[in-house]
Amino acid sequence: MNSYGQLFRVTLYGESHQPSIGVVIDGLPAGTPIQYELIKEDLERRKPKHIGSTPRLEADVFHITSGVFNDKATGSPIHVYIENKNVISKDYDALKNHPRPGHADFVSKVKYHGFQDHRGGGRFSGRLTAALVVAGSFAKMALPFQIESQLKQIGTLTDMSKIDEYLTDISNQGDSVGGIVEVTVKKMIIGLGEPFFNKLDAELAKLLFSVPAVKGVEFGLGFSGVDIYGSQFNDVILTKDGQTKTNNSGGLSGGISNGNDLVVKIFVKPTSSIKKTQETYNFEQEGVEKLNVGGRHDVAIVRRVSVVLENMIAIGLLDQYLLYQTYRHLEDE
Amino acid sequence: MNSYGQLFRVTLYGESHQPSIGVVIDGLPAGTPIQYELIKEDLERRKPKHIGSTPRLEADVFHITSGVFNDKATGSPIHVYIENKNVISKDYDALKNHPRPGHADFVSKVKYHGFQDHRGGGRFSGRLTAALVVAGSFAKMALPFQIESQLKQIGTLTDMSKIDEYLTDISNQGDSVGGIVEVTVKKMIIGLGEPFFNKLDAELAKLLFSVPAVKGVEFGLGFSGVDIYGSQFNDVILTKDGQTKTNNSGGLSGGISNGNDLVVKIFVKPTSSIKKTQETYNFEQEGVEKLNVGGRHDVAIVRRVSVVLENMIAIGLLDQYLLYQTYRHLEDE
Amino acid sequence: MNSYGQLFRVTLYGESHQPSIGVVIDGLPAGTPIQYELIKEDLERRKPKHIGSTPRLEADVFHITSGVFNDKATGSPIHVYIENKNVISKDYDALKNHPRPGHADFVSKVKYHGFQDHRGGGRFSGRLTAALVVAGSFAKMALPFQIESQLKQIGTLTDMSKIDEYLTDISNQGDSVGGIVEVTVKKMIIGLGEPFFNKLDAELAKLLFSVPAVKGVEFGLGFSGVDIYGSQFNDVILTKDGQTKTNNSGGLSGGISNGNDLVVKIFVKPTSSIKKTQETYNFEQEGVEKLNVGGRHDVAIVRRVSVVLENMIAIGLLDQYLLYQTYRHLEDE
Amino acid sequence: MNSYGQLFRVTLYGESHQPSIGVVIDGLPAGTPIQYELIKEDLERRKPKHIGSTPRLEADVFHITSGVFNDKATGSPIHVYIENKNVISKDYDALKNHPRPGHADFVSKVKYHGFQDHRGGGRFSGRLTAALVVAGSFAKMALPFQIESQLKQIGTLTDMSKIDEYLTDISNQGDSVGGIVEVTVKKMIIGLGEPFFNKLDAELAKLLFSVPAVKGVEFGLGFSGVDIYGSQFNDVILTKDGQTKTNNSGGLSGGISNGNDLVVKIFVKPTSSIKKTQETYNFEQEGVEKLNVGGRHDVAIVRRVSVVLENMIAIGLLDQYLLYQTYRHLEDE
Repeated sequence: MNSYGQLFRVTLYGESHQPSIGVVIDGLPAGTPIQYELIKEDLERRKPKHIGSTPRLEADVFHITSGVFNDKATGSPIHVYIENKNVISKDYDALKNHPRPGHADFVSKVKYHGFQDHRGGGRFSGRLTAALVVAGSFAKMALPFQIESQLKQIGTLTDMSKIDEYLTDISNQGDSVGGIVEVTVKKMIIGLGEPFFNKLDAELAKLLFSVPAVKGVEFGLGFSGVDIYGSQFNDVILTKDGQTKTNNSGGLSGGISNGNDLVVKIFVKPTSSIKKTQETYNFEQEGVEKLNVGGRHDVAIVRRVSVVLENMIAIGLLDQYLLYQTYRHLEDE
Repeated sequence: MNSYGQLFRVTLYGESHQPSIGVVIDGLPAGTPIQYELIKEDLERRKPKHIGSTPRLEADVFHITSGVFNDKATGSPIHVYIENKNVISKDYDALKNHPRPGHADFVSKVKYHGFQDHRGGGRFSGRLTAALVVAGSFAKMALPFQIESQLKQIGTLTDMSKIDEYLTDISNQGDSVGGIVEVTVKKMIIGLGEPFFNKLDAELAKLLFSVPAVKGVEFGLGFSGVDIYGSQFNDVILTKDGQTKTNNSGGLSGGISNGNDLVVKIFVKPTSSIKKTQETYNFEQEGVEKLNVGGRHDVAIVRRVSVVLENMIAIGLLDQYLLYQTYRHLEDE
Repeated sequence: MNSYGQLFRVTLYGESHQPSIGVVIDGLPAGTPIQYELIKEDLERRKPKHIGSTPRLEADVFHITSGVFNDKATGSPIHVYIENKNVISKDYDALKNHPRPGHADFVSKVKYHGFQDHRGGGRFSGRLTAALVVAGSFAKMALPFQIESQLKQIGTLTDMSKIDEYLTDISNQGDSVGGIVEVTVKKMIIGLGEPFFNKLDAELAKLLFSVPAVKGVEFGLGFSGVDIYGSQFNDVILTKDGQTKTNNSGGLSGGISNGNDLVVKIFVKPTSSIKKTQETYNFEQEGVEKLNVGGRHDVAIVRRVSVVLENMIAIGLLDQYLLYQTYRHLEDE
Repeated sequence: MNSYGQLFRVTLYGESHQPSIGVVIDGLPAGTPIQYELIKEDLERRKPKHIGSTPRLEADVFHITSGVFNDKATGSPIHVYIENKNVISKDYDALKNHPRPGHADFVSKVKYHGFQDHRGGGRFSGRLTAALVVAGSFAKMALPFQIESQLKQIGTLTDMSKIDEYLTDISNQGDSVGGIVEVTVKKMIIGLGEPFFNKLDAELAKLLFSVPAVKGVEFGLGFSGVDIYGSQFNDVILTKDGQTKTNNSGGLSGGISNGNDLVVKIFVKPTSSIKKTQETYNFEQEGVEKLNVGGRHDVAIVRRVSVVLENMIAIGLLDQYLLYQTYRHLEDE
């Protein structure tokens, strides 16, 4: 249940306050040059360094312990781990029986019969996305596509030039906001995605919803396409390469990439941990009690999540790209 | 690539104009009573019978050829097929080199190197959802939850009392519209969904995006939650059973069901096939040409799709429910 | 649990006395020419026509209902079914509470809580191998290798020229025998099989042990290699293509094909159903009682099983061959 | 390709001369007490300490970095790694273009286009079985069965009291021998294994053939059953619990455990690396040349492999046992 992919396979492990988190990356073609700088940059982008970010700053030094030889992939599974160093576990002890609203504390306790590592959200912590980012960096090393993202909205703000001012204000209120990120994949090719259950949009949606705090995913126009007619929504094919006049479908036809830019929008909910006093059920007191969440958190996790979303998409794309390679060349023989 | 599920496994086959479509359903617990009427009713709900529906009316008689004995599941895979009877293949011959906008005709041709069965959209046809509906009916036979749905919006219309009038108007224009369906699952339990990559929302999103024409999926408030603060978004736990004051998260915490109603909204794009003349690239003429799409189609496929969405959710829920059973009882020993 | 394969996927359904058995074949490359005659010949080889074979002779007409268009694979899943026509179910009613020795009657009843279709062995019947043979025929259509087999021993007989005389004698005694089949795959290439858990020998062994009555699998010298030294067992590489002096390892190095002939031997146990009176526990009488097994059976099922074993190997080889294709061409880019 | 299992999932990584080897273990029920001593003992049993064993002695200290909290499984994936400390890589440089007979050197080079880590056999090294042993130890913590093994034959020797003398002799000749191990699982239950493709024997055979040097697997009488009649081979059921008079089928009926002892025999080929001078193709010299294999090796790897085989069986059993749990309790509701 902690593995994703058919050909490019990612197996994730780790919990927020355990010694380390890590990932086993399987299926990267032998000979792929390892871009250490890319991994560093991607991890850097995920770090909390903006206004209103959590003060838990991890060094995020990554260690590769198998699958790389002479700076190239060997074809064996690649194992990478990152230590959890900056851990303050006592923050969490009080929350054992007083679950934080918006978090998985309560369901985790029920699901794992009380044996879960509750510290820092355990395996539900956003901390694990650091290992996913690394897996995505490896995926990008073998992909010919170009993945970009843009923060479209944060809370009610759509003019990103005012973001620091806006978040400072919310931080001062002890509150948090969510946001919408748009990821665009350029230089796409035709034919990625496999019907019926491994369509490209279905696989990417699965990966994106795996990221903590994601509550909505839409391709192309998405929900806002409800207002227009089919004659307006349909993307007219203009060239023999499949280029279309509009891209309302977000680069997908029947769940298969159609060669136009892949466009997906993701809604990330407001950070659940806030400074403001909240209420929640207390299982010791057997009643609703006030709660002040300790720990160290972001006022808008959406600001750091872009690279996670991009890299999850990279993971999904490489898995489909390898499948595409399988059948692409058979015809030549 | 045509199978879904880890414990409850659905394998789909068929193409629009081949002799039949069908599904192999694996993992239904031995002894489950087969509800033939439920299958019939579900198939009936999917049939085109509203104003502006396609005149291709299939009898949709289903045949079970294995896995059922004395009206109960035997524990073996269940095979069900439905014949394609009302097929008019000549409609589609002209479209071979003149792909319909909004359809998978073009990508299918590229992906399968011209060997695809192009008639009626082949395997990309909405026709295959009839077999999925059947698989979902079987899933519901083993589920203790209650699945309902509501059409929230169709085109610009939100007052459903005026739907026939509205669709007649669009049909007269030779055009089509999309819509938004909300599915609600009641009597949920705590603990469905498996981190990291098989969270309940991730699995359901994957299944929902597998349905042709779905372009957006959101849980709870979804995208509209971007406007509010964390203190408002967080659902406050009120009882020891995990009941919450609000349900902004749509019944999910960390991707795991939290016992509150599961609420998901799905955007279905406008039907791609319309009577109106459109333009698209003609691979014979090597230029953009006018196209009149023949065949028989719906003005608003969203109207028939509700039961497909519900039943896809049932498939995903049963797979997770069986996983849940695996670990639920181990503690008792 | 009824599906095999990562890229070439076979999903099997059916029970001995249900309307039909069938198979969904997924992953055959689009454009593969369908060799109908090959399927017919393979099914013919499996038919009981020798001395001492069961008189249940099925026509075994196969029906393809999807995935083939203009005599070529479309890239969609191929569904094939075969009707169960020559069924005499009353033979089996007496066995409900008096399980046949050597059969799965007893475990099936326990495992499926009495809901299994017990007639003719249900899903444990050798009947299902007819559908597997068909799946293997399709696999062979896309494979460049040559698969052959030889009956090496039947009972105590190793001189196959006397087989009819030998089996007539055993048939007259109302008894049965097992045997050893050797399958050889020629024109192999280097590199099939994926460490660690999808090695070629591991995958083939899994498929071979899936065939009813198989109780032993060995590659190359197999168990008889226990008597010799490493210096004798090791196959010396003689050429740059990897040709070896001996082939004690059966064409495998580290579980990966090494380009020499693949050689595997399979032990098939004596047919469980015999005319001779046997004893077994009677769950109604609550004691061991004499049993005369009715039904129609083979004195040496091993004689018909060769094509099943060959075709199971074909299924495993194609799955690995497609995986091999995935990575083979990436280097060229 | 480096993961095994449906519910109990083991993902293996590592290469002989990389910093470490490790395993991600997923699906162990939350709350399972961790038996550290069992892991230590199992690793100890695998260590080279007999006469004629390799002098590469690793400390094999195992490190758990996630999934365990308060000495119990949390329900999250468990990551365990073991460092490769006693590594002498220069031994292997000469073998780059002069592949060792009986090893995967040559196929590995071809398969991974020369990018494999060739040192010490890379991922094909027996070294990786240390991590598998650990995974098996964890499996045993959640299993109610008792797994034992016995060395039945080593080379031509069947009287194990003379083993040291026998192996000293072979060691002095600079040669090696193989052997046959019998594993017995006691206290089995009825119903493990899932037709059609996940039968218990099929899954165990797959796992056993994954172990380096295994070339044959048979259940119960195995190949030696070819000599007897069906009336002798059939195991007569004597009790309502399914106990049989004989156990020729090795505790399996139709690939499903029948409650009697599970009995499997495994042939392990002679160690490929020997001191004796051998011949093999030299890719630099382009001809067959003499080779003296350096490195440090066992005269009879079969002597250390028993715990690996037992633990692989434990892995397979737990996966099937969890599946069995899924359906076992559904009937009670």
